[in-house]
Amino acid sequence: MTSELPALYRLGIVGAGQIARMTHQAAVKLGITPRLLAEESDDSAALAAPDAVYGHPDSLAAFADTCDVITFEHERLDLGLLRRLEEAGSTIRPGAKTIAAAFDKMHQRRVLLNRGFPVPVFAEVRGPDDLMDFSTVFGWPVVLKSVRAGRDGEKGVWIVENQNEALKVISENSDRQLMAENYQPIVKELVVLVVRRPGGNSRCYPVAEVVQADGVCREIRMPASIGHRVATEARDIATRIADELEAVGVLAVELFLTTDGLVVNELAARPHNAGHVTIEGCPTSQFENHVRAVLDLPLGPTWASAPAAVTFNVIGGLDGIDPADYLPEALAIEGVHVHLYGKRPRPGRKLGHVTAIGDEMELAREMAQRAEAALHGRRPW
Amino acid sequence: MTSELPALYRLGIVGAGQIARMTHQAAVKLGITPRLLAEESDDSAALAAPDAVYGHPDSLAAFADTCDVITFEHERLDLGLLRRLEEAGSTIRPGAKTIAAAFDKMHQRRVLLNRGFPVPVFAEVRGPDDLMDFSTVFGWPVVLKSVRAGRDGEKGVWIVENQNEALKVISENSDRQLMAENYQPIVKELVVLVVRRPGGNSRCYPVAEVVQADGVCREIRMPASIGHRVATEARDIATRIADELEAVGVLAVELFLTTDGLVVNELAARPHNAGHVTIEGCPTSQFENHVRAVLDLPLGPTWASAPAAVTFNVIGGLDGIDPADYLPEALAIEGVHVHLYGKRPRPGRKLGHVTAIGDEMELAREMAQRAEAALHGRRPW
Repeated sequence: MTSELPALYRLGIVGAGQIARMTHQAAVKLGITPRLLAEESDDSAALAAPDAVYGHPDSLAAFADTCDVITFEHERLDLGLLRRLEEAGSTIRPGAKTIAAAFDKMHQRRVLLNRGFPVPVFAEVRGPDDLMDFSTVFGWPVVLKSVRAGRDGEKGVWIVENQNEALKVISENSDRQLMAENYQPIVKELVVLVVRRPGGNSRCYPVAEVVQADGVCREIRMPASIGHRVATEARDIATRIADELEAVGVLAVELFLTTDGLVVNELAARPHNAGHVTIEGCPTSQFENHVRAVLDLPLGPTWASAPAAVTFNVIGGLDGIDPADYLPEALAIEGVHVHLYGKRPRPGRKLGHVTAIGDEMELAREMAQRAEAALHGRRPW
Repeated sequence: MTSELPALYRLGIVGAGQIARMTHQAAVKLGITPRLLAEESDDSAALAAPDAVYGHPDSLAAFADTCDVITFEHERLDLGLLRRLEEAGSTIRPGAKTIAAAFDKMHQRRVLLNRGFPVPVFAEVRGPDDLMDFSTVFGWPVVLKSVRAGRDGEKGVWIVENQNEALKVISENSDRQLMAENYQPIVKELVVLVVRRPGGNSRCYPVAEVVQADGVCREIRMPASIGHRVATEARDIATRIADELEAVGVLAVELFLTTDGLVVNELAARPHNAGHVTIEGCPTSQFENHVRAVLDLPLGPTWASAPAAVTFNVIGGLDGIDPADYLPEALAIEGVHVHLYGKRPRPGRKLGHVTAIGDEMELAREMAQRAEAALHGRRPW
């Protein structure tokens, strides 16, 4: 099979955070230097890449002219512009159809519901009345969500226990479109990464399990500690959603395992935080497979290289500690893979991640957790 | 243990070929963006790094002023300048003592012989008379070598069978300093990579076996197919040489296994072509450990991640084929890791490498060889 693309792949990445940084690294391995559309010169990827141009994502049209293929590290995009670029012949991967479903959660829910995928009960919240109607039928608590994808680390989900709490969230977010979902007790949060080529050829990574703390993803375990039946169903749902949305590149499907079974929580049409574990945990990382997929190159294997792989995110604390100051301490923890993104520390900001792989999940967790603690200047052992 | 260096590691790399490119990638993973001293804007590493300055290696003094630590991807350096920079307080890793031994093979042989390491019989060749004296005592064939380290891919070793051949080499290389060694039949060519920190803490990678074709390294197998006794001796020799030379970073010790036992062939005071196999074959690549060592950070594990790992170099052919044109075909070979360096094709130029790891060496070789053939537009299966 030969690719339709010329020998020199002119790949453009919109966004220059850590996702773009690691995607860039994966492309460089293949002999490709992507061009970045960055916002600030100290964006994580811009610090490590030679070919960054600066501009708002809305300056996409000029950027697209300089690239053969455009891909994205986030979904905060002008969908109308994307559609016009597609119509004008730009190669946008994933395309507007996929990005729309990741960007607008109401649209996403409607598409998934129409196609028979398991989603929570949901409703649009145009004002307090909509919410009262919803809670009257489904009771409290209610999950309130921002309809649009937010910035990394931006809170966009509130679990409200009663009318007063709900009204407070609504009034504090009057500039945002909100939606309501019924609250289901969550047994586990799962993420399935699917990578898909334009022709439909796709591969699925092992199901990962995500552990949140204070609304932020703290830990990713691969494989998830779930039964074979649930794992198969999760991978099947994710693969079918990717086909339904004609996704190209990585599509991350976040699922809740509830007492009623699996429901789709969110979609991301790009390499995902939960997929950082694939760098050391799988023969082909999500980043390399994303690059391969958007360039319509054959995909690499996605199985687990080890029985257990675990990633801890390194998130900026209120103490302002810079994990880079504690790199020696973290590297002293034998066999942990330390990734830092070159970002300035800020509370709640993702500054890096650490991964450990091994034969046994608890042992890998222990190692990764020690390295994460070390990067925060703590010594918990 | 805390490092003596500040939080922001200002690391400079002299040279911008593929060794620098992969070292740069390893540093970026750790949150560090090295500065490069490149010669041309299409140097492999300069294509993938944001902070390249251009100049001859002799412009090192100005470059050193902008870095906390300087390291190198080659040894074609002005040793006098390095020594002056060291005396003036620059942190040069490895230091002039190590680089001198890698750069000047006569000096290297003398140092190793003095310390009791096994080396071939050797002599300086200032002219035809020296060679005649040598061949009278040790007979033919004789190995003639350039005393100074050459450029990547530059021939610097000739095996001459008689006086006429010898005189031809001497007259064609009148601008070079030459040395003679007695020829010993080689059973295997081995490479041991040692990585060493300033304080002396060092680690050794599994012994690799190198297969040459037409004087160019074509294939690297790790571990080498040798007995435990030879492997232990090889690692012991390499570690002791690193200590003797007070090496910092990766020291590559090339050894010949002859019918008379192990002899040291050459030294390289930097990440080595044979070490590309460590990217996928070991928990910590030679590149990451080189960065850690020169920044005096704790070293990562160097054991083999799999029972077999094999790398084939992708070398430019006379047909002018660009391996990047055949990336789709190479990636279609399941599970092979393809690395391209972004270089323009030229006969004899190292353009990339492919690595396969697995449970069985012959199977891994078969896969890597297929990918290498595919990148040359061949279908040998």
